[in-house]
This record gives sequence, C-alpha cells and structure tokens, in this order.
Amino acid sequence: MAGKAVPNATRRSERSHRAILDAALELVAEVGYPKLTIEAIAARAGVGKQTIYRWWPSKAAVLLDAFVALGERAAQEAEGPGSEAPYAFPDTGDLEADLKFVLRATVDELLSPTYDLPYRALAAEGIVNPEIAAEFVSRVMEPSVQLYVERLRAAQQAGQVAADLDPRVAVELVTGPVTARWLLRTLPLTHAYADAVVEMALRGLSPR
Amino acid sequence: MAGKAVPNATRRSERSHRAILDAALELVAEVGYPKLTIEAIAARAGVGKQTIYRWWPSKAAVLLDAFVALGERAAQEAEGPGSEAPYAFPDTGDLEADLKFVLRATVDELLSPTYDLPYRALAAEGIVNPEIAAEFVSRVMEPSVQLYVERLRAAQQAGQVAADLDPRVAVELVTGPVTARWLLRTLPLTHAYADAVVEMALRGLSPR
Repeated sequence: MAGKAVPNATRRSERSHRAILDAALELVAEVGYPKLTIEAIAARAGVGKQTIYRWWPSKAAVLLDAFVALGERAAQEAEGPGSEAPYAFPDTGDLEADLKFVLRATVDELLSPTYDLPYRALAAEGIVNPEIAAEFVSRVMEPSVQLYVERLRAAQQAGQVAADLDPRVAVELVTGPVTARWLLRTLPLTHAYADAVVEMALRGLSPR
Repeated sequence: MAGKAVPNATRRSERSHRAILDAALELVAEVGYPKLTIEAIAARAGVGKQTIYRWWPSKAAVLLDAFVALGERAAQEAEGPGSEAPYAFPDTGDLEADLKFVLRATVDELLSPTYDLPYRALAAEGIVNPEIAAEFVSRVMEPSVQLYVERLRAAQQAGQVAADLDPRVAVELVTGPVTARWLLRTLPLTHAYADAVVEMALRGLSPR
C-alpha cells in the first residue's frame, strides 16, 4: 500500500463504483427493471462488464447497493455529514402526531419517482428471490422498523401504549397496510389514508 | 355453427385451454417465474405457441387465469358445484373468532406450495406491471376483501365495531400486516402472528 499509485487507483475505483450505482438508478427509471441489464449499466457508467461482475453477482445486487446509497445520501443531505441513523424518528411526546408525521413521510417517499421505481423493482425481485429479500429486509426495511420499535417502547414507558403489546407486531399494524397498498396498488396511497391507519391502529376497531 | 364439428372443436379447445393453465402452474413451481416461457408452457401442454398467443398476450396473463381457475376449483371442491362466492366468510357472532379463523386460513393458503409460487409470481409481476396489478387486484384480491367488508358491516350493526369506522380501511388493518410479512418475508408467517394481529387490530395500541 505504498506510493501514489494506490490512492489514484482507489479514487478511480470509487469513481467507477459510484458511476455504476448512478447508472443503475437512471436506467431502472428509464427502461424498467425487467429490461435492466448489466451490459446497459456498464455502457452508461463507462466501465467494462467485468468491472461490474467483479463487485456484484447480479443486476439485483447492483440495484440494492444503489438504493441503499441513495438513502444514505438523502439522510446526509437532510441531517448533515456524520449522522448515524438513516432517519430520525420524532418524539414530541404526542405518539399519534409522531406516527402520522413519519407515515406521511413514508407515503411521500414511496410515491416519489426517485424512490418508487428502484424500491418497487427490489421488492418485486425479493418476492421471487429469497436472498435478495433477506438483504433488502436487513439493509432497507429493518433499520426503519427498529426506529418505530424504539418510539413505541418509549410510548409504552410513558403509558401511551399498552404495556403488554409486542412492539414489533404493533409496528406492522401501522406500516403493513401502507406497504400492502403500495405494493399491490389496491387503492390510492394518500396522507389521509396514512392518518386513518394511525388513528385506527391506536384506537382499535372495537367501540370504546 | 352446424353439425358435430363445432361441439368437438369446442371440447378440444376447452381441453387445450385447461392443459395450458395446468402446464403454467406446474412449470412456475418447477422453474420459477423468471424462467417461465410461453414456449415451455406450449410444449408441456402439447399445443403450439400460437394457440397460447391467440388467447393470452403474455405469460403473466396465462398465469393469472391459471391462478383464478385454481381458486375456483378449490372453492367448488370445498363447497360443491354451483356455489357463487369464492369463499364463505363465517359469521358466528364472535367477530374476533371469525377474523382469526379466516386470517389463519389465509396464512395456510399463502404458505401452501400450490398457491405460494404462482401467487408470489403474480404479486411480483404486478409490482412492476400496473395492468397485471389491476387484474390481479380485481379478480383475486377484491372478492375476498369484499367478504371482509360485509362481515365488518354486520359487526358494526351488532355494535361490535365502532360505527364511524371505514370498513375498507379496517379490513386493511387486519390483512395488510399479513400481506406485507408474506410479500417481504420480514419474519415468519404463523397462526400465532395472525391471532396477534387480529387482537391488536380489535383492541388498538392505546391502553384501555
């Protein structure tokens, strides 16, 4: 690791890496996931196919890294460099308001063109490809699920959520309906829907 | 339309139709959806490719019809011929027990090899293909959602569900978490999970 050659090579390598991830995101938006190819990503990024195969086994793996990098960049822009958590979960003391704030932001993210196409492509691939599903869940889904779990635990300590509930299942009661509506496109995904889900999840279906 | 030729041709045509649908289901289980081809379906069904293309525009369209036919056949076997509804939704007067019964049956169906692979393939295709999504929703999802809606309306009339709730959103609070866990494979899908979701949806997260 001596001399100038290594830092230059490292810089070149970083530049290629970033160009490949950018090309994957651009192309999935332009041609759709089924027509996305390693060849097209290589051509757009100005690298050889072998450079991509040296780092990634499949187009799904490239897209997953590209999507994670996109989220990290968005978080850094929002919170400044060096921030640890991908997203901060608000704790104003008002659980209903905090859950609505986050679930509305999730709806906005799912509907934004930047996220929608790669996110949808990865979810679709994950449905038929268990390895990609496992990576998608551990790198994309779980970090935000954990933020919900922590917020619900705080609410349990504050007496705002029943103490005997499993917070992991409680998170899914709030996020599951939005995820399912987004993935299956059953009905429009709106802020009003996010609010209705949060209110219903907190109060329950049974009359009080 | 005279003579014996027409009934024979119709019978032959019905036989080919059924053979194509069966072949699509067999092959998706054997090779997976990404590798499923119209050529392979034709070869397995003993028909020409053009016969398939005369009836269906794509492999997704064949698989959707095959999946709907599978559900109809299962319903006929379960309920006898001539039954109208694809599935009956129990109404014992105990909403919690009825929801758990149906949601456990849904979990069993989602995990059974007969349904899991074609269902998953269609859901994945629908995520990136809005036309297939619309057909999948209207022919596969909505009929069962409507049975839930009717059951929840009866519960509202019986005073077991708050009268001011939108039953459509209420259904999704119960089914959304199971759908999301199945599609994204976040955690295991079990009867215990189905029960926990029903209990939490009825009682809500807030302490009483």
